[in-house]
Amino acid sequence: MALKNQLFLGSFVHCKALDELEYLHNAAICVDQSGTIVAVETECDAVKAKETVFPRLGWGDAEVEVVAAKEGQFFFPGFIDTHLHASQYPNVGIFGKSTLLDWLNTYTFPLEASLSDPAKARQVYTRVIRKTLSHGTTCAAYYATIDVPSTNLLADLCLSLGQRALVGRVCMDQLSPDYYRDTSAETSIAATRASIAHIQAADPAMSLVRPVITPRFAPSCSAALLRQLGALAAEHPTLPIQTHISENAAEIALVRSLFPEDASYAAVYDAVGLLTPRTILAHAVHLTAAEADLVAARGAKVSHCPCSNSALASGAARVRWLLDRGVVCGLGTDVSGGYSASVLAAARQAVLVSRHVSLAGDEGGEGEGERGRERERERLSVEEVLFLATKGGAEVVGLAGRVGGFGLGMEWDAQLVGLGRVDAAGEVEGPDGGDVDVFGWESWPERMAKWVYNGDDRNTKRVWVKGRSVHERR
Amino acid sequence: MALKNQLFLGSFVHCKALDELEYLHNAAICVDQSGTIVAVETECDAVKAKETVFPRLGWGDAEVEVVAAKEGQFFFPGFIDTHLHASQYPNVGIFGKSTLLDWLNTYTFPLEASLSDPAKARQVYTRVIRKTLSHGTTCAAYYATIDVPSTNLLADLCLSLGQRALVGRVCMDQLSPDYYRDTSAETSIAATRASIAHIQAADPAMSLVRPVITPRFAPSCSAALLRQLGALAAEHPTLPIQTHISENAAEIALVRSLFPEDASYAAVYDAVGLLTPRTILAHAVHLTAAEADLVAARGAKVSHCPCSNSALASGAARVRWLLDRGVVCGLGTDVSGGYSASVLAAARQAVLVSRHVSLAGDEGGEGEGERGRERERERLSVEEVLFLATKGGAEVVGLAGRVGGFGLGMEWDAQLVGLGRVDAAGEVEGPDGGDVDVFGWESWPERMAKWVYNGDDRNTKRVWVKGRSVHERR
Repeated sequence: MALKNQLFLGSFVHCKALDELEYLHNAAICVDQSGTIVAVETECDAVKAKETVFPRLGWGDAEVEVVAAKEGQFFFPGFIDTHLHASQYPNVGIFGKSTLLDWLNTYTFPLEASLSDPAKARQVYTRVIRKTLSHGTTCAAYYATIDVPSTNLLADLCLSLGQRALVGRVCMDQLSPDYYRDTSAETSIAATRASIAHIQAADPAMSLVRPVITPRFAPSCSAALLRQLGALAAEHPTLPIQTHISENAAEIALVRSLFPEDASYAAVYDAVGLLTPRTILAHAVHLTAAEADLVAARGAKVSHCPCSNSALASGAARVRWLLDRGVVCGLGTDVSGGYSASVLAAARQAVLVSRHVSLAGDEGGEGEGERGRERERERLSVEEVLFLATKGGAEVVGLAGRVGGFGLGMEWDAQLVGLGRVDAAGEVEGPDGGDVDVFGWESWPERMAKWVYNGDDRNTKRVWVKGRSVHERR
Repeated sequence: MALKNQLFLGSFVHCKALDELEYLHNAAICVDQSGTIVAVETECDAVKAKETVFPRLGWGDAEVEVVAAKEGQFFFPGFIDTHLHASQYPNVGIFGKSTLLDWLNTYTFPLEASLSDPAKARQVYTRVIRKTLSHGTTCAAYYATIDVPSTNLLADLCLSLGQRALVGRVCMDQLSPDYYRDTSAETSIAATRASIAHIQAADPAMSLVRPVITPRFAPSCSAALLRQLGALAAEHPTLPIQTHISENAAEIALVRSLFPEDASYAAVYDAVGLLTPRTILAHAVHLTAAEADLVAARGAKVSHCPCSNSALASGAARVRWLLDRGVVCGLGTDVSGGYSASVLAAARQAVLVSRHVSLAGDEGGEGEGERGRERERERLSVEEVLFLATKGGAEVVGLAGRVGGFGLGMEWDAQLVGLGRVDAAGEVEGPDGGDVDVFGWESWPERMAKWVYNGDDRNTKRVWVKGRSVHERR
């Protein structure tokens, strides 16, 4: 089904800089049939667009679909989830009091292994794509499982349901139980090649879906497997790489014992050529300063996953500290170490976790003077977490300048957001505004804060990826 | 409108002990016209109830209304919000990077002062009651403002909309700006008496609504006002008392400078007779061991407010530590220092904040041996936060044994909860299950965890207070 040219009208909000949102009101954005933004006009309504913009674009009125935001609604870039395990989605919220390593054995490996059943894989993957689209996630960096056919199915479903995605077959030839492990480094590489070939054939231009080289994490991979994955990455210089790093203390100790010759966890990946500008490192909670500098020097990116930071008691990642060192960061839901598939929930938790970072080592102290100012800097603002959720995420997944904002020439990955409006009698007017109540006096920045703190999928009225409408709330 | 006798059928879940939920399936609960539970029967359906239970109760079939939970749904006790500022509701989510004392001046006092406008008060209070009812809050301990007529209006609205509530006129004769302050201790007491008289006249039996003596917090009250409020509490031995304690470091330092002769923050309240078994202390983040022991000895209760702990960077309250010392705890949303009016969201954040407590002083360490076990104990479970949200809260607000569970003779304050059910194709069946997806294989404890982690007002299908249906989701 070919797209029509589209005209979007109303208020547009996107990230101009890390700590600054740009608000375009009474604006118009034209998106062509390829899903590309070809005009961004301020002080422009439908009439003016037809009279002055369409002729310039060579558009006839009849072939344009018009989508106008209602009063109080706004268009916002689609969210980018830089880290989630599609195969773990059914387990969201289930982890008891476990921490990382026992959580893997108790909850995670059995579920992932069960997805080699194609019917179950289709059910779970369909659900996770629909669920994340409904929360405004237009691009996701997915871990599937070790199983090739179902990993390929995840990529096929992303294509058919219209979600932009990185899809990775998980590589792991040690640590996990016999029933869920690659039998050798060679079989792991062969299976990974098979999955890469399938996904590249399904979307040769990588217009929506790309394969991603996915060593689960260092402790799950033999030295031989890591080396061969590094070689595979060198052989495919356009493919992204994703893995985990430094999530919790027991894991770090395990890496130290497994790779005694490497100077650090980051050095393990670096030694085999897996620490690159195309590498997405999930967590990075406990990196040393030397590791952070190495990550920055290599241009590798970090997926900050605040929900699992808290839920698995891994620790509170120091995002400001990473940003200050020049490490590019985005947000990940980390389903199901994270309990929610919503990037908005991750953004909210990123604000809160940064408060806990600011309390560390000085419980209860407000702090004065320099430490007080440092403490305040560590706190992420609403604007900053929205940046991480969009523009930051785009850079993390290798799509900077292509998605994550509303610039000319970028692709239209967007969501239409609407909040609840309270009338004079204290009732909510109009369609379901979810849990967000706007009284009318709020400034736009205050509305954005209300959305971040109490918003959910009810506020995401409609979602587009590359110009295609992929979700609409009934 | 007189109530009919009611028969509730299906699954009932409530808290048996701090760490234990009781599941009653295929059960029946009979609630009489006064809203009291008069029969709890297991292995009982409508037919059996009519044949064996109704005759015992002297009920004729025709005069009984039957409410049956659908497959997968369950009845749960209504939530008890032990601390929220009704007057601050419009500000939820709005606090920037502020901490307690600057947040009060920038965001809070101007809004509270504006509610002396009766139309605005009616709008805001109607909305907060409807909002919290829709989230399953059947009982709330409210702070209003210093204004008597609008405080009384809040109590009247609780009565007419059917929410059980403690309603407090806020007492404060110092610290805040001129435009929002009691002019003297005497006027503060007189205004408080006027509000108490109004609320007692509106609900003489205190069947739903009770006045609560409410010194805002020690720094807002002159020594004279605190003394006179202590005397007022002694004069009204059935009335509850609520205030704040030890939320953040700057506040504690301020109390020390204002009350140099008292040994501690808790001692300030104790010296004037405000630390009693009827006292609700919000926050208690930084109590010393001596203060916690004093609080326990006096039988005062703590309202734990995890959302504002994190949001205002106040610190992470050590709930296990308080419980271990014999301090009774419940949950508060602390609107709008807390960003959400939902007790379920507070329960979720209580789990997460307890993880940050377990990380304190040993960032990143898993901990082994004794510290490892201690660390694990500090983590609250799903069962425990649901206890705090119901039975714990009931004890905090002085309603232990009357609400918070489904025992014989207790009043029917309850919510009907339904979760989303994913079908084989990955679509969600039936009515809106909100953000919770159940695949079918989950145990009941796992369903409860999914509800706590991803549930919202969409899962609360219907709400009753004292037998009266007060909210139904369309």
